[in-house]
Amino acid sequence: MSGRWILLLAVVLSMTKPSLGKEPPSTKLPTMAEVISNSTSVDWKAIDPENTLYVDLKKGRVVIELAPVFAPNTVANVKALVRDGYYEGIRINRVQDNRVVAWEFPDADQTNMARRIKHGKSTLPPEFERMIDPALPFTRLPDGDVYAPEVGFCGDFPAGRDPQSGKMWLLHEYGMVGVGRDNALDSGGGTELYVIIGQAPRDLDRNVTLIGRVVQGMEFLTALPRGTGDMGYYVKPSQYVKIKSIRVASDVPPAKRTNLEVMRTDTTAFHDLIESRRNRREDWFRIAAGKIEIVNVPIPVRPVH
Amino acid sequence: MSGRWILLLAVVLSMTKPSLGKEPPSTKLPTMAEVISNSTSVDWKAIDPENTLYVDLKKGRVVIELAPVFAPNTVANVKALVRDGYYEGIRINRVQDNRVVAWEFPDADQTNMARRIKHGKSTLPPEFERMIDPALPFTRLPDGDVYAPEVGFCGDFPAGRDPQSGKMWLLHEYGMVGVGRDNALDSGGGTELYVIIGQAPRDLDRNVTLIGRVVQGMEFLTALPRGTGDMGYYVKPSQYVKIKSIRVASDVPPAKRTNLEVMRTDTTAFHDLIESRRNRREDWFRIAAGKIEIVNVPIPVRPVH
Repeated sequence: MSGRWILLLAVVLSMTKPSLGKEPPSTKLPTMAEVISNSTSVDWKAIDPENTLYVDLKKGRVVIELAPVFAPNTVANVKALVRDGYYEGIRINRVQDNRVVAWEFPDADQTNMARRIKHGKSTLPPEFERMIDPALPFTRLPDGDVYAPEVGFCGDFPAGRDPQSGKMWLLHEYGMVGVGRDNALDSGGGTELYVIIGQAPRDLDRNVTLIGRVVQGMEFLTALPRGTGDMGYYVKPSQYVKIKSIRVASDVPPAKRTNLEVMRTDTTAFHDLIESRRNRREDWFRIAAGKIEIVNVPIPVRPVH
Repeated sequence: MSGRWILLLAVVLSMTKPSLGKEPPSTKLPTMAEVISNSTSVDWKAIDPENTLYVDLKKGRVVIELAPVFAPNTVANVKALVRDGYYEGIRINRVQDNRVVAWEFPDADQTNMARRIKHGKSTLPPEFERMIDPALPFTRLPDGDVYAPEVGFCGDFPAGRDPQSGKMWLLHEYGMVGVGRDNALDSGGGTELYVIIGQAPRDLDRNVTLIGRVVQGMEFLTALPRGTGDMGYYVKPSQYVKIKSIRVASDVPPAKRTNLEVMRTDTTAFHDLIESRRNRREDWFRIAAGKIEIVNVPIPVRPVH
């Protein structure tokens, strides 16, 4: 998106400020709802069941889209752990307000549980960042970022880039899924998983391996009671939240899958969506920010019909 | 805070990177926990009970510190509504994931409830921003902001400033409390209150009147079940969450108050705290961001002993 186009948009917008309410609807720039409703099938793509995890809780299903482009070894390992049956009986044991929901076996059980691992590994070298590849799409946001030299969307994920180091990485924000680790950088492999449930803790970027993002069912995680222990750990096992199963979607019979498609981020429609969020056009708004942080750009997801 | 000092800190930090773990603890810059534990009574101040609201729920008390410096008329009006008994029987009717918790009487009851208002008003002109006053403290953050020309702390609140317009305003972020409004700018006065429970929706800045922030008890709001209606409204009245009472703290007998103090934001200790969050020094961190967004700087609160 060129700076000139943005400037033009800003000028056009200032002439069509929704709060004036005098222009016929046809001259208005579209709201996000209109961008989505005007989109066509080429603006969407199905999420690959082989790179989708279902975390089934009593209240509903949490669907995670995995990001093998950013963390190939860790994603493969988590799928191996799933298929080894490693997670059977695992429970959510940490809900830290405005921070994370996480699950791992209690320390006392971990040696025992490690015996389940056959094709996976309990720990892996970190995948905190990867090299920039010009072949990968990157829809860069125009408004800068406090933490990263560049931010934008790479495929279905928010990413940061540093042209100087030649590296790119996934961003810690609401809904992103990572593998917990201890102080040693290679101590995380997927035996502990976490989901960000609050304000983007961007100081974690490039400190932990992120493996994907929740594309449906966040509300089953975010509404859990907060743990009262240090860092939000539940203090009594009776508070732990049972996870019925964790499965790779492709292992689930087709009739029991949650088939979703995600809006492509390399299309004109998605550019329009970004603009609709930079400059809110809904009648309620008095002023449009004219800018946006990456975490405030949603990547729409919908059921496959 | 001068740029030179920050540069010096960055240099010192690079020499004392916690992950090296070779330096004696005395040469390490303090973590946030250490800054707080090293602080003295002059770094803290009691929160004024006359500018504190208690929202008592079945599960616990939500404590809101009001911001009369930013919204004098709306803060006075909300206190008048409290003392008129306006909120008696009001229930939380909206919990939108990653967005807000809000309460107002259902449309059908509003005319009836408006009869309770004696000293307050049902609507007020907006207080979206105010003039910058050099007499007000402002601890500016050094790393910029995507939305505002300047951001920092003014008293106990996060604020944005625009030297060109001469205006300053409170920021929409986790824990901030505002008065809902309809499309008309003067349609909000406090009969609907909301609390931000997720990622900072900064595009709301200067579009709604903010009146304060939750300083204790966020977990009683954030863990509520999400509403399944449009914008997170509960679809059935049976889902509404009862509010036992809303009171101004000074109207509550001293023995039943929750006496809190907040860390001052215009002290060396708070500068140290900001630095401890810009550059995380806990052993776990591999790299320090070296930067911070305002929403990721906590303003510590503690019980008065």
